[in-house]
Amino acid sequence: MKHYVTVNDIDSSSDWIDLAGELKKDPFKYKELGRGKSIGLLFFNNSLRTRLSTQKAAFHLGMHCMIMNFGSEGWALEFEDGTIMDQGKAEHIREAAQVVSQYCDVLGVRAFASLSNKEQDEAEIVLNGFKKYATIPVLNMESAIEHPLQALADLITIAEKTEKKSPKVVLSWAPHPKALPHAVANSFVKIMKQNSQFNFSITHPQGYELNPDITKDVPIVYDQEEALAEADFVYVKNWSSYSSYGKVLSTDPHWMITKEKLGQAQFMHCLPVRRNVVVEDAVLNGDQSLVMEQANNRTFAAQVALYKILKGL
Amino acid sequence: MKHYVTVNDIDSSSDWIDLAGELKKDPFKYKELGRGKSIGLLFFNNSLRTRLSTQKAAFHLGMHCMIMNFGSEGWALEFEDGTIMDQGKAEHIREAAQVVSQYCDVLGVRAFASLSNKEQDEAEIVLNGFKKYATIPVLNMESAIEHPLQALADLITIAEKTEKKSPKVVLSWAPHPKALPHAVANSFVKIMKQNSQFNFSITHPQGYELNPDITKDVPIVYDQEEALAEADFVYVKNWSSYSSYGKVLSTDPHWMITKEKLGQAQFMHCLPVRRNVVVEDAVLNGDQSLVMEQANNRTFAAQVALYKILKGL
Amino acid sequence: MKHYVTVNDIDSSSDWIDLAGELKKDPFKYKELGRGKSIGLLFFNNSLRTRLSTQKAAFHLGMHCMIMNFGSEGWALEFEDGTIMDQGKAEHIREAAQVVSQYCDVLGVRAFASLSNKEQDEAEIVLNGFKKYATIPVLNMESAIEHPLQALADLITIAEKTEKKSPKVVLSWAPHPKALPHAVANSFVKIMKQNSQFNFSITHPQGYELNPDITKDVPIVYDQEEALAEADFVYVKNWSSYSSYGKVLSTDPHWMITKEKLGQAQFMHCLPVRRNVVVEDAVLNGDQSLVMEQANNRTFAAQVALYKILKGL
Repeated sequence: MKHYVTVNDIDSSSDWIDLAGELKKDPFKYKELGRGKSIGLLFFNNSLRTRLSTQKAAFHLGMHCMIMNFGSEGWALEFEDGTIMDQGKAEHIREAAQVVSQYCDVLGVRAFASLSNKEQDEAEIVLNGFKKYATIPVLNMESAIEHPLQALADLITIAEKTEKKSPKVVLSWAPHPKALPHAVANSFVKIMKQNSQFNFSITHPQGYELNPDITKDVPIVYDQEEALAEADFVYVKNWSSYSSYGKVLSTDPHWMITKEKLGQAQFMHCLPVRRNVVVEDAVLNGDQSLVMEQANNRTFAAQVALYKILKGL
Repeated sequence: MKHYVTVNDIDSSSDWIDLAGELKKDPFKYKELGRGKSIGLLFFNNSLRTRLSTQKAAFHLGMHCMIMNFGSEGWALEFEDGTIMDQGKAEHIREAAQVVSQYCDVLGVRAFASLSNKEQDEAEIVLNGFKKYATIPVLNMESAIEHPLQALADLITIAEKTEKKSPKVVLSWAPHPKALPHAVANSFVKIMKQNSQFNFSITHPQGYELNPDITKDVPIVYDQEEALAEADFVYVKNWSSYSSYGKVLSTDPHWMITKEKLGQAQFMHCLPVRRNVVVEDAVLNGDQSLVMEQANNRTFAAQVALYKILKGL
Repeated sequence: MKHYVTVNDIDSSSDWIDLAGELKKDPFKYKELGRGKSIGLLFFNNSLRTRLSTQKAAFHLGMHCMIMNFGSEGWALEFEDGTIMDQGKAEHIREAAQVVSQYCDVLGVRAFASLSNKEQDEAEIVLNGFKKYATIPVLNMESAIEHPLQALADLITIAEKTEKKSPKVVLSWAPHPKALPHAVANSFVKIMKQNSQFNFSITHPQGYELNPDITKDVPIVYDQEEALAEADFVYVKNWSSYSSYGKVLSTDPHWMITKEKLGQAQFMHCLPVRRNVVVEDAVLNGDQSLVMEQANNRTFAAQVALYKILKGL
């Protein structure tokens, strides 16, 4: 049984990129593959792009889609084993995951980091709870520490837009008023590392180091101007501190991305984006922005992942 | 690109009415037209009839439907340009509208009037935000100042039910405990004016004048009894004051519609309706009520609008 | 017009069980039966199994499915006749039920007991309101006093798993921190009584007697150990007091089901279940538990009910 819960589940980047290209040209090419198959999409958090693009991908593959906002529509879940469930939790993940497996052929799960309990977040209690007890493949629609559908869409976008074999790609932190998870940044770093042709580095203020197990061997440059010099792609994203877990240490506006800072590089962001906080209007409104291509590629990233899952059923 | 955001988008009432009749006889006649096409329905407000009838219409046309309760499932939207988005709004309408356009072929939007900010309501910031930045046709599922799907269903209903060439149609205000928007009344007035065969007038208490730009040239009669005399169709609806914007100036029960007041006329209302406040039970339970035909025609109104949009893709 | 609102609507248990078996072997066998037909699923309460299994059943039968969380997405409903609706309720059940009938061919409704107003709960005001005014068949997705889809799934499960002609089946109350409705227990008792081959009894503490009209002629044993002796199937469920309506009279942990108490019997529960409160982990994790078979059979129970309804259209 094949899951797609981390970018590590990609067995061949080039094959996956090629398949995305093929699907983009002919989205309904494999519409028979999912016939009679149901995918359940369980949302523990809000979603716009993931919600619509995953449905669209399933539609292209001929799948039947069932969606639940689990928090408001289902039952509060218990994730601990051996608990006496006499408090607020009505259902254990063991039952919930197995039950959903009775009704679906594939299971999508979105469950963000709490940013308050590092140990629980790193254990991916929701995603891994479903993965452990479900008897069907699991599709990660953004978990506490990874967002592999986004990273795959990002990789496809860079592959489409690069004119160089080894483009310089920089992941830059940017300010944000709220504490945000690390999932998008983590998955982007991992997928950049998996594809060694990229000249990849990270820039952020001191104290914003991502999990060092993930960034191992990636150059970290604390001077943003130096980092961005001669970049071909600048991927911008806010995240909260990892060492001071979930804290906002800085909202320094000097880290905002401007058209000037961008130079000749193409701009990337996963969206939603805070205009004139993360990046100035001139970038988003200009022709160096790839954010709409990234959003569009979310459909084909999801479709590639579902294709691989369906083939493995 | 054809939108259906106002009744002004109807190019020929008689053609649209004829098409509705054709679809009503054979709802799946054009089920190939929407094959492979997706419609996104974004709800910023509650909905029963619009939610189900638009889905049904899309189903009849073979379309794939994706629904979002935007407020609770998506991200809070910013509509102002040039803002520094460091407050509660997570995504700008520019991105949201363009992103949704990546996943859908048609976009339905429901966003009511605030009734607190007249300028913003009249600018239709939500609907027009999507219309401006989306790259796909927009279907108005009730906006701040129009409800063109309801008005089209109303027109179809009158066309089906009239035995006269020039029936007398009266729009009567009725009391209601809450402040309600003007959208239904506005669109009904506009569609009546577009179809000059109707002998159309409006009755309401002083202070409840609708936007004079919309009611221009329509007789306004402040005496309800006089207004309703010899009417063929009485369309009843509450709305809040336009001049004292969003205020409830009167809940005078004498304006409630009764069987006696109705005379021989047929009764119309868009629903939901407050029984024994807006209209007495005897009317709704009697055979002069057309409310179920109106509700039924919502499906075919939506189907006509979507047919026109799909033909224009 | 055939409804499925109570287990009394089953005309032949053996036929329905046989049909479930047939559908389980070939779920899409009757996929043409629902073509072009729409089912509306209205949820007034949370749901996991019912939500997904009913959708799945409809999908197997080729039906189009429209789902509403009525409380948050629709309008607050008035159920009393003759009311002056000048308070919080925006729409009367008469209109709501008839309107939904314009858009759907079958209507599913889930509306739990309030547990605060016995008279209203026993009158099934929501379910019966829809049944009375809808002009299409109604499917009960758990109402104030019955859960006939669950009971049918339970019957199918026992039929599949029994090796005896007259197995001993015991319904045992178990503790729970919250006040729960009687619907599951009621429907299970009724379906056991309808099928006289079962050696059926009930065990619960004093004060937890179910509605005596329903349990009439069923042995009630107040000693759980005595009741469970030599049982083949033990159906465990909490419910609140019926005589002291909606009250939690006891949370005595001695009534929790253990592996030891279970003996050789097979364990049944409708889920969600509180682990180590209602039943100990060892039972749910062991091979005497049928809860996943019950959950799986929810799909085929719903499919049998919808098949019967579609055949009766």
